[in-house]
Amino acid sequence: MDAKKFVEEQITDIKQTVGDEKAINALSGGVDSSLATVLGHRALGNKLRTVFIDNALMREGEPEQVVDTFAQMDIPVDLVDAQDDFLSALEGLTDPEEKRQAVTDTFYSKVFGRLVKESGAKFLLHGTILTDIEETVAGIKRQHNILVQLGIDTQEAYGYTVLEPLKTLRKDGVREVSMALGLPAEVSHRIPFPGPALATRIVGEVTRQRLDTVRIATTVVEEELGDSGAFQYMAVLLNDRATGIRDNKREFGQIIVVRCIESTDARTATVTELPWEKLHRICDRITTEIEDVNRCLYDLTPKPPATVEYI
Amino acid sequence: MDAKKFVEEQITDIKQTVGDEKAINALSGGVDSSLATVLGHRALGNKLRTVFIDNALMREGEPEQVVDTFAQMDIPVDLVDAQDDFLSALEGLTDPEEKRQAVTDTFYSKVFGRLVKESGAKFLLHGTILTDIEETVAGIKRQHNILVQLGIDTQEAYGYTVLEPLKTLRKDGVREVSMALGLPAEVSHRIPFPGPALATRIVGEVTRQRLDTVRIATTVVEEELGDSGAFQYMAVLLNDRATGIRDNKREFGQIIVVRCIESTDARTATVTELPWEKLHRICDRITTEIEDVNRCLYDLTPKPPATVEYI
Repeated sequence: MDAKKFVEEQITDIKQTVGDEKAINALSGGVDSSLATVLGHRALGNKLRTVFIDNALMREGEPEQVVDTFAQMDIPVDLVDAQDDFLSALEGLTDPEEKRQAVTDTFYSKVFGRLVKESGAKFLLHGTILTDIEETVAGIKRQHNILVQLGIDTQEAYGYTVLEPLKTLRKDGVREVSMALGLPAEVSHRIPFPGPALATRIVGEVTRQRLDTVRIATTVVEEELGDSGAFQYMAVLLNDRATGIRDNKREFGQIIVVRCIESTDARTATVTELPWEKLHRICDRITTEIEDVNRCLYDLTPKPPATVEYI
Repeated sequence: MDAKKFVEEQITDIKQTVGDEKAINALSGGVDSSLATVLGHRALGNKLRTVFIDNALMREGEPEQVVDTFAQMDIPVDLVDAQDDFLSALEGLTDPEEKRQAVTDTFYSKVFGRLVKESGAKFLLHGTILTDIEETVAGIKRQHNILVQLGIDTQEAYGYTVLEPLKTLRKDGVREVSMALGLPAEVSHRIPFPGPALATRIVGEVTRQRLDTVRIATTVVEEELGDSGAFQYMAVLLNDRATGIRDNKREFGQIIVVRCIESTDARTATVTELPWEKLHRICDRITTEIEDVNRCLYDLTPKPPATVEYI
């Protein structure tokens, strides 16, 4: 692939299609939506409104970091606080499918849907890649028709057009184009992070307090394993509790699982054989820096039979 | 300590105290109750009735193995099937303290209490060691007065006498005397195993099916780590579930935690740095040999802040 030519073609195409109308897109901070955002802004300038929706499920400082990274590329991003919308939708849910669905529904139907309608935009820019389309066709992934997800009836509401400039690329192509465009490494080589974010890293109910717990654990794991070269690493908060002793008192504390894997495409994965010194250090930090956590476990399971995430 | 002299003194003492009366004791298979049983039989012969209570919480083949080990020493042990008593007492309980209490109460008040009264024995032989007494005094362990635990009011029911031949020994002394008496290594060097047995290895409700699951995992861990030289190793079944894929289908499976520690007295413990090859093999066996288990985790936590057991 000629990355430079690809970029020029997509910019021309977006420019011609949108003309004098307005466009909108949601940036997640992942490499796909980041590249789509950069292409969109090269083509449309301030006719494209880019929003970053703070769903309360992000990692420590993540919303600000993403906005800042794009500000340095002179791309303005609107940070939209939708924490309460997501947290109230998740309240009381423990079933993994229901939790994922609540995040998706709140994003599309409630928060982004409203922003799209208010913006007056007729064009939606979306970072769909070839693998998304293939997996939707194969029935592995849920439906990727963004208009349907936004509750926009494509029959009645003609006038909305979806732009998918990355739909011929796979992940490696997206990274290649991102590098050619000079996107910073923290974008082009970002460790995979799931759409429902830290909600997938909590077994049981997602609450503000439990998010705080898994957020600190995530920071520790990312600090300690940032230079590990692993494909992906994460911290997961279990719902179970176990006995422990602190200050000579018996307590019934929380449990964090650390998972670190090697993979090329996330379809299969093996477990990283981390040095024991590193494992002891992670365990020590997690059980001392986080209140109420007294166990740290390392996931030994490859994919299959386990998945990468827990829910 | 002169082990031989200790044995002779205790045998003489038990013989003189019991005289022509009958005695009874419960054998758990642990080194303390095993040594008490051997001393009692050397002193009393068939005037001592030894029972092994099958509480449904034992490891694979354990009741038969214990009975068989003692049969080879010409010591008859009555295997008492009390599985239903324990399982019905545990039904619906998820709180760790309630589970432990249910096992203790069923053992003393219901099963062993009845056996003591039916036996006509006036003497109870008990494997109390010095550490039990010290920890009871210090408030760490629950009360060790066996008569009170059996619901026998020592004021009204005079005539019951408790014999505690090991009450001046600590664990190392018990092992030394056991070896001097020629007890087999599987008794004298048995890996510590908690009184409430596999009930302490299950987070959440203890059911026959969940006991089967943790029992197979325990067999795998003991087979794989039997020659590890570790102080203690175990498998724990969590209550949480996590996603996995088997035969290309998404499933929501169970989680087993493997714990292996180094310690001298169980008061503090560090985690054994097992070879990765061994960890992978244990994970592979656990996720293939046990239906419905798709995750295997290794506990990285020392004591403190974790305890050895989970409940």
